[in-house]
Amino acid sequence: METLSQHRCHGGTLGYYSHAATSTNCTMRFSAFVPEKPTGAGLLYLSGLTCTEDNFTVKAGAYRTANALGLTIIAADTSPRGDDVPDDASISLGKGAGFYVDATEAPWHTHYHMYSYCAKELPALVAKEFAVTRFGLFGHSMGGHGALTIGLKHPELFRSLSAFAPICKPSTDGWGPAALTAYLGSDTATWAAYDACTLAATHGGALPEILIDQGTADSAYIEGRLNPEAFDAACKTTGQKLRLRFHEGYDHGYFFIQSFIDDHLHHHAALLG
Amino acid sequence: METLSQHRCHGGTLGYYSHAATSTNCTMRFSAFVPEKPTGAGLLYLSGLTCTEDNFTVKAGAYRTANALGLTIIAADTSPRGDDVPDDASISLGKGAGFYVDATEAPWHTHYHMYSYCAKELPALVAKEFAVTRFGLFGHSMGGHGALTIGLKHPELFRSLSAFAPICKPSTDGWGPAALTAYLGSDTATWAAYDACTLAATHGGALPEILIDQGTADSAYIEGRLNPEAFDAACKTTGQKLRLRFHEGYDHGYFFIQSFIDDHLHHHAALLG
Repeated sequence: METLSQHRCHGGTLGYYSHAATSTNCTMRFSAFVPEKPTGAGLLYLSGLTCTEDNFTVKAGAYRTANALGLTIIAADTSPRGDDVPDDASISLGKGAGFYVDATEAPWHTHYHMYSYCAKELPALVAKEFAVTRFGLFGHSMGGHGALTIGLKHPELFRSLSAFAPICKPSTDGWGPAALTAYLGSDTATWAAYDACTLAATHGGALPEILIDQGTADSAYIEGRLNPEAFDAACKTTGQKLRLRFHEGYDHGYFFIQSFIDDHLHHHAALLG
Repeated sequence: METLSQHRCHGGTLGYYSHAATSTNCTMRFSAFVPEKPTGAGLLYLSGLTCTEDNFTVKAGAYRTANALGLTIIAADTSPRGDDVPDDASISLGKGAGFYVDATEAPWHTHYHMYSYCAKELPALVAKEFAVTRFGLFGHSMGGHGALTIGLKHPELFRSLSAFAPICKPSTDGWGPAALTAYLGSDTATWAAYDACTLAATHGGALPEILIDQGTADSAYIEGRLNPEAFDAACKTTGQKLRLRFHEGYDHGYFFIQSFIDDHLHHHAALLG
């Protein structure tokens, strides 16, 4: 792991790091906030379409409360990077749009393994380098999809889960079908492992209450690309507890996220102890 | 005034706006945060080299506390903008580097009147459009220079003043001499109106306590480009009260600013009532 820069922030340290990732077969970057008094509780944040590790780091306003709660926070990138990594002109495929799957289709299958990277390789690195012993997981939009799907499949690793305006049903809604077709092929049976609604119905009940915040003025929500109502219904089929909150007038961006970030940090801190 | 976008944020509204500015003879942009319950107290924030109105808006983490205190916050751009506005390859001259002066030298004198824009035109617009009745002023780096110089000359308008890592003595230090020569000419007598140390010695004592925060790991500070010690000494000559705080290990960027922004908001709110 290479340290790219470090900045003192709210009494803790915010750093940018890179490492040679085996799952994505390229150099990956992430940011890590380490509080003055780490408790061993760490959150992994997954970002949305077009984002890098920088969006949350710079815009979410999370570190004052993270320092007060003793939370380490890791913000991951959203895709493999580099000149030899295939890309696409669309905002919803290729770089910045890894969709947290392990791609099986060419040309994506050599690098686009963001599922394995975020569910396994990055947490293992963070546990070793930052002494994180208990993980929570959260994310926004495409990263909310990543958090819900990875979290539902790995309750043994991620003990707390939340999301801002997550894509809940990518197998049918919004940007999902085109991306899943490209990464996984047209056999929709393979998509089920990456659909939060399907997973809530098959794996629900193993996690403590999930927190989801959704703005009512969010254009992606209004256009039907997110569908938290379907996730709510799926959770009910397995008794998975969910606290789904709607916020009048809030949109899809980081002004929304910064408004409710503290609630998410308290949610995770309470569950991680 | 044209509304470019609006976002609900921490219960208030963050908007981006543009207007045809007469002082700078071009279209100017700014952001405005209006809390749920405005008190009439408004802060004008001036940004540093290379910045636009967006840096503070996105990175400072100011709006949670601003909403709680009922503060309106305006973030200004740092220079005139547009294809017909002269520029320079240096980061410290031209676009993004207006230095809050009224330029008298060609080619800068037709647009680079950021002193008049920030001291007069923008506050008048803000008073009218956002019902601000009491103003405070603050800024960072080059914008800290702008805040200190404008604030010291206009205690009748700006009743509270603070800065993060301000350039305090541009007539001799760092980026200042080259910029002032370009904008004002080589007669250094004209520079005195834009040097915070000179102004503290001639205009000091009219303002309540000024708050300045400075990080000790700030490369611009270490290189002697900021010189808060000279400002402290100048304030003492006129009895201008100053609270100058040094923060161990903090650098020059917004991770530093977000760490202490709440103290500045409370400083202004207490003085503006």
